[in-house]
Amino acid sequence: MVPKKKIDEILDGYDPSKLTIATLCSHSSLQIFHGARKMGFKTLGLVTKNNQKIYDAFPLAKPDRFISYSDYDDMEERAGELLDENVVLIPHGSFVEYMGAKKFEDFAVPSYGNRAVLNWESDRDKQRSWITSAGAPMPRLITDAREIKEPVMVKYHGAKGGRGFFIAKDYPDFKMGIDNSQPYTIQEYCLGTRYYLHFFYDPLKTDGYRIKQGGSLELLSIDRRDESNIDEMYKLGSIEDAKRHGLYPSFVVTGNTPVVIRESLLPKAFEMAENIVNRSYELFGGMWGPFCLETVVNDKLEFRIFEISTRIVAGTNPFINGSPYAEMIYPGMSTGARMAMEIRDAVQVGKLKTLIS
Amino acid sequence: MVPKKKIDEILDGYDPSKLTIATLCSHSSLQIFHGARKMGFKTLGLVTKNNQKIYDAFPLAKPDRFISYSDYDDMEERAGELLDENVVLIPHGSFVEYMGAKKFEDFAVPSYGNRAVLNWESDRDKQRSWITSAGAPMPRLITDAREIKEPVMVKYHGAKGGRGFFIAKDYPDFKMGIDNSQPYTIQEYCLGTRYYLHFFYDPLKTDGYRIKQGGSLELLSIDRRDESNIDEMYKLGSIEDAKRHGLYPSFVVTGNTPVVIRESLLPKAFEMAENIVNRSYELFGGMWGPFCLETVVNDKLEFRIFEISTRIVAGTNPFINGSPYAEMIYPGMSTGARMAMEIRDAVQVGKLKTLIS
Amino acid sequence: MVPKKKIDEILDGYDPSKLTIATLCSHSSLQIFHGARKMGFKTLGLVTKNNQKIYDAFPLAKPDRFISYSDYDDMEERAGELLDENVVLIPHGSFVEYMGAKKFEDFAVPSYGNRAVLNWESDRDKQRSWITSAGAPMPRLITDAREIKEPVMVKYHGAKGGRGFFIAKDYPDFKMGIDNSQPYTIQEYCLGTRYYLHFFYDPLKTDGYRIKQGGSLELLSIDRRDESNIDEMYKLGSIEDAKRHGLYPSFVVTGNTPVVIRESLLPKAFEMAENIVNRSYELFGGMWGPFCLETVVNDKLEFRIFEISTRIVAGTNPFINGSPYAEMIYPGMSTGARMAMEIRDAVQVGKLKTLIS
Repeated sequence: MVPKKKIDEILDGYDPSKLTIATLCSHSSLQIFHGARKMGFKTLGLVTKNNQKIYDAFPLAKPDRFISYSDYDDMEERAGELLDENVVLIPHGSFVEYMGAKKFEDFAVPSYGNRAVLNWESDRDKQRSWITSAGAPMPRLITDAREIKEPVMVKYHGAKGGRGFFIAKDYPDFKMGIDNSQPYTIQEYCLGTRYYLHFFYDPLKTDGYRIKQGGSLELLSIDRRDESNIDEMYKLGSIEDAKRHGLYPSFVVTGNTPVVIRESLLPKAFEMAENIVNRSYELFGGMWGPFCLETVVNDKLEFRIFEISTRIVAGTNPFINGSPYAEMIYPGMSTGARMAMEIRDAVQVGKLKTLIS
Repeated sequence: MVPKKKIDEILDGYDPSKLTIATLCSHSSLQIFHGARKMGFKTLGLVTKNNQKIYDAFPLAKPDRFISYSDYDDMEERAGELLDENVVLIPHGSFVEYMGAKKFEDFAVPSYGNRAVLNWESDRDKQRSWITSAGAPMPRLITDAREIKEPVMVKYHGAKGGRGFFIAKDYPDFKMGIDNSQPYTIQEYCLGTRYYLHFFYDPLKTDGYRIKQGGSLELLSIDRRDESNIDEMYKLGSIEDAKRHGLYPSFVVTGNTPVVIRESLLPKAFEMAENIVNRSYELFGGMWGPFCLETVVNDKLEFRIFEISTRIVAGTNPFINGSPYAEMIYPGMSTGARMAMEIRDAVQVGKLKTLIS
Repeated sequence: MVPKKKIDEILDGYDPSKLTIATLCSHSSLQIFHGARKMGFKTLGLVTKNNQKIYDAFPLAKPDRFISYSDYDDMEERAGELLDENVVLIPHGSFVEYMGAKKFEDFAVPSYGNRAVLNWESDRDKQRSWITSAGAPMPRLITDAREIKEPVMVKYHGAKGGRGFFIAKDYPDFKMGIDNSQPYTIQEYCLGTRYYLHFFYDPLKTDGYRIKQGGSLELLSIDRRDESNIDEMYKLGSIEDAKRHGLYPSFVVTGNTPVVIRESLLPKAFEMAENIVNRSYELFGGMWGPFCLETVVNDKLEFRIFEISTRIVAGTNPFINGSPYAEMIYPGMSTGARMAMEIRDAVQVGKLKTLIS
């Protein structure tokens, strides 16, 4: 991981009045550029495929310029060009996934958020230990498949974006479905409704929902995910039926829809989020900015967290023009704009370094 | 029920330029406080659990102050404190449910809307008689279980928030599922898409969609409900299959999503709403303010009303930042703000008493 | 089809500073009137049923006046009244369907968009040839039912709004379900998530996402459709199960919900849309204004287009108050307002004729 000291030295060389917000052109980049422009920043799109043209279609989200790379090695080697532009990177899920968490950790360009979180997010065991030691409930882990007595979700390690998941209703079902050549994890299948809660932790904010760690916690929006092909599979009859026709369920995220949750669930949601943030400071120096608790709510109105994303998620994209929750904090604010606002405000009080690693 | 005369005497003692909007801190209270603040009112949160902190997270929806109660008896005994603040209560579903309809009817604090509606809403037979005598279609009631010849919805009396409902496909299915120790109702199961239509009846408005009763009817938004665990149960195979694994469907509302309906359904929807409002004046002195027709639309594009809510529903929460329907009446208006606007306007023309009971 | 020359002569007689936007009162007319008013146009509602009252409920979307017709013959005969008002018609799905495509083609009133597109949209074979010759992927057509080896969608010709569709999982299933007395088409059933992409092609725009044809392409919003009764059928068990109780799936659109797609799908979506627009100019003189690609995204993140709508779709109605995509082009803009803006701008540069046929 790039030492924080090195990043701070780079920031010392930056002209804080001329920062450029940069990100990889994918995932939530339209929202990130749109928000950065709103807050008065110059913007820079990092391109590895020839896909700049799409930004012409959304002029208020088009970065001021692009840099094209042949691959991520090329990007790494040409880090100096970004430093010349006073770049602050905004990482998003695809940025980290495509570059590789290891390479991203070592990429010597100032990056919004805490790089140390990557290690705790990408390792499923560490993630579980973080969340559960914060007192937040996760689906139960099943270590011996023969103990499957209820429906379970099986996840192959390294499965991305919902590929390589399957649901087994019992042990025979598991045995039929499992590919033993790959490592996997078995979790209790938590039946309920899925909510992706888009929180934002601002370590510099001194009003609002204050937490033990010192800053303030916000909830900016909530989405549900569309998954192909599971979402419409029932139209073919039951899933068992579909399997007999050679169609197996998959869970590839293709889109996002807006949602709000029962107001009485909010205190519980904030409590979980607060504990997870507080715990992050104890474990690895903290998590700030946007993060997403990926939850399911069962019919007893209890949350289970099946995953955490420690940066902006694509589920915030339905809210580029505001959300019912943001309306009660900063009307019309997206998560992309919120990050830019935090960077802008930190610059004004001379605290940019606390947000960057 | 508190006599209207007593409420009017209390209102005579109020300073109408210093009204305070108050509600119970749950359900749609964020929206109610947010709307009341927008319209320039002081706001007061009534708290029975220690859950004030959540309002810090949404500063534009945070009430000016809170009053904490040990329970609803305490709230009732301390009604005088509310009168000192010139309080107008906004009831919502949870307020009435938690306090109890009977206790709420007798709570001697001016309350927005007509208290007499409670009795017609909480008694299923009276509700059915009101709706059907207004000419609006409801699912058929089945009085003898042996006559179940098609799928039915069985509701135990007093079932709240979707607990204690079940679907039976035929008579054997019903016999398997029924718990005879509890009283229940059997209704035709209406297959289709569910729409929760958020109407608003303003008895003082003299333009817009005028109805026989004299005022004007609005449609502010429409939602669909997320229900745990029925919504994602199909992922385990068919429901029959899930039952074999000990998982039974439940219908607990956990969230709400925005939706619009076919434009050609709107005239029918308004006609039903108008007839139900007109009939409410004949039966019990009227229903005004927000109400929700909970409907299903079948594949012949016919509505069935399976329930009415006679006050603000949580399904309006996705629209705190406006809705496609509100945009064509009052851009950016939520149901919470609409109520506050009506109270503000009634004060200006000296007609507050007509809205309060 | 009315010759373009005749339409141009009519336009020569119009006072371009006094145009009136008119449409049939249904489908997306509220949005069309709302948008036209926003852009400063006079508006006129064409009514065949006695349904004007609904517009009172939405004053910002109420047309300045109405004309009532006994039927579409009456409308045709009284075309002169529209010309007296300098009317530009905005066609929508129901307008064309109710009037009949043939009659609409011959209706001698200036109409936004290219009438010639109707012929290529309403004939399924021509539509398929247009889309596929543009290089865009469609579900595979199965010409011999005995070759059904995977789930298929069967569509009876002339089936409207989702009636007369059925899904067959295999050949025996097909044989059981088919009504051989009606002509039908068999298509591969594409399993995935459905997205209705609301594009807008502006032939006069010289910045933004430029295409070969010369103008510029926009994506204004995306919706998913609610369909009765298929959407909630799974609650009765599997579809097979429902059939045993005499309930058969139907696909009647009753409403629309907002959605966004994975950002990485956008370049592909624009590429398809561009090719389809370019091809329309080669085949029949072009398609401009709003059009909708009705797609499914499978779990390999590939699009299939199962239909194109060549004018405003009702799926844009959730976005009367803006959309996350419009926010990055024209904040708060609906498709209805976008059409009016294009007409207004064309008038200003003396190019109205290029938009009208």
